[in-house]
Amino acid sequence: MTYCVAMHLADGMVFISDSRTNAGIDQISTFRKLFIFSTPGERLIVLQTAGNLATSQSVVNLLKQRCSGPGPHLLNVRTLYDATVLVAETVREVVARDRTKLAGKTDLSCSFLVGGQIAEGAMDVYSIYPQGNFIQATEDTPFLQLGESKYGRPILDRNLTYRTSLEEGLRCGLISFDSTMRSNLSVGMPLDLLVFRKDSFASAKSYRITADDPYFMRIRMQWAAGLQDMLAALPEPPDAYMSGGCQ
Amino acid sequence: MTYCVAMHLADGMVFISDSRTNAGIDQISTFRKLFIFSTPGERLIVLQTAGNLATSQSVVNLLKQRCSGPGPHLLNVRTLYDATVLVAETVREVVARDRTKLAGKTDLSCSFLVGGQIAEGAMDVYSIYPQGNFIQATEDTPFLQLGESKYGRPILDRNLTYRTSLEEGLRCGLISFDSTMRSNLSVGMPLDLLVFRKDSFASAKSYRITADDPYFMRIRMQWAAGLQDMLAALPEPPDAYMSGGCQ
Repeated sequence: MTYCVAMHLADGMVFISDSRTNAGIDQISTFRKLFIFSTPGERLIVLQTAGNLATSQSVVNLLKQRCSGPGPHLLNVRTLYDATVLVAETVREVVARDRTKLAGKTDLSCSFLVGGQIAEGAMDVYSIYPQGNFIQATEDTPFLQLGESKYGRPILDRNLTYRTSLEEGLRCGLISFDSTMRSNLSVGMPLDLLVFRKDSFASAKSYRITADDPYFMRIRMQWAAGLQDMLAALPEPPDAYMSGGCQ
Repeated sequence: MTYCVAMHLADGMVFISDSRTNAGIDQISTFRKLFIFSTPGERLIVLQTAGNLATSQSVVNLLKQRCSGPGPHLLNVRTLYDATVLVAETVREVVARDRTKLAGKTDLSCSFLVGGQIAEGAMDVYSIYPQGNFIQATEDTPFLQLGESKYGRPILDRNLTYRTSLEEGLRCGLISFDSTMRSNLSVGMPLDLLVFRKDSFASAKSYRITADDPYFMRIRMQWAAGLQDMLAALPEPPDAYMSGGCQ
């Protein structure tokens, strides 16, 4: 499995991806699922992927290769919307190419999150479905997820709004990953993250959080201890709860 | 959808079920999913259900009806294991009866949690799969879930062990339901809960938590506020997190 989150907040964007892939339960590997296409000072486009690894790697390779060609590519399209259409078309192209008799019933589909900002355009985050159509994050729904999304969703639903600061959005996202990784072994370290401050175009680098990262270890421990304290601090249940009130 | 939890702890058992059912997104109703079969002082058997409502209601009705008949039934079987076999056989019987041409491709399957204690026997909690086979909670895995289990699972994974007290297990379970209901509208109030203290056979009544239940409202608010405070109290992310450390 995979877990990826992309947030579109008032001040910028936060992207976090895990890196665990598995083909069956006994073939587990580490592959990066967060990719950056950028022209310093002009554009930053972040891709995050889930689904069939062969498909998503081919899509990213083709998108990269074509950046030096004459056609439309991620470094010359004019809008984030056009960039998303291009990624979706490339997904369809690869699936059509690989969907041969040999592939049989193998599920070749994959999903992408595409986010970023180009020149003076607005920031945007899109989620491309395996079918190739896509939706967009909005002020009402400022985050999109890929993959194993349910374990880590409550903390985002509860605490993330469009006005949340980048720092708090990042902490909220990291706790969402912590919860997911504790409950589902198919989502795992290291994590790749990128925080982009609106109009900055400066942060075209991602940061890799490894299992021994001191900050992440610290907030994981602080969170776990805090939850235990909070549970213990909840008031005692009424007697009716403990002994039944009605049949 | 449905969300049910059954805990098998050292001191007793905790059962919590939601009551929302839906046939499609626009046909939503309230149906009890927690049922009690008991002989005061001798046995308590709790059933929780998820899946096709017609099937699960038929199963419960047949199980009740047969309690006054001559054959093996839930009030005369000798062990929790035998009770679980009986429930599983009744599920298969109803599905076989209703799986006609008229049913077409309707999914008739349902799942059950069966928990309780009979006379001097041990407490046990079983989870019956739609196929009719079943697993059992153990000291290593002291809780079983039905239905929409992922949203509410992290708090159980983090904080629930076999040695957790009944009161703390109940609080932990209620927070698990709170998280699930906030993230998934198909799980909803009222909740039915039953706490059984080992060897007591006294608590053969369930308690219904309605939307305006003062205790549940209080812990939901306290929990939400506490999470916000905890997030805000996490240390600031290092600069490398915010600006990218390596490509």
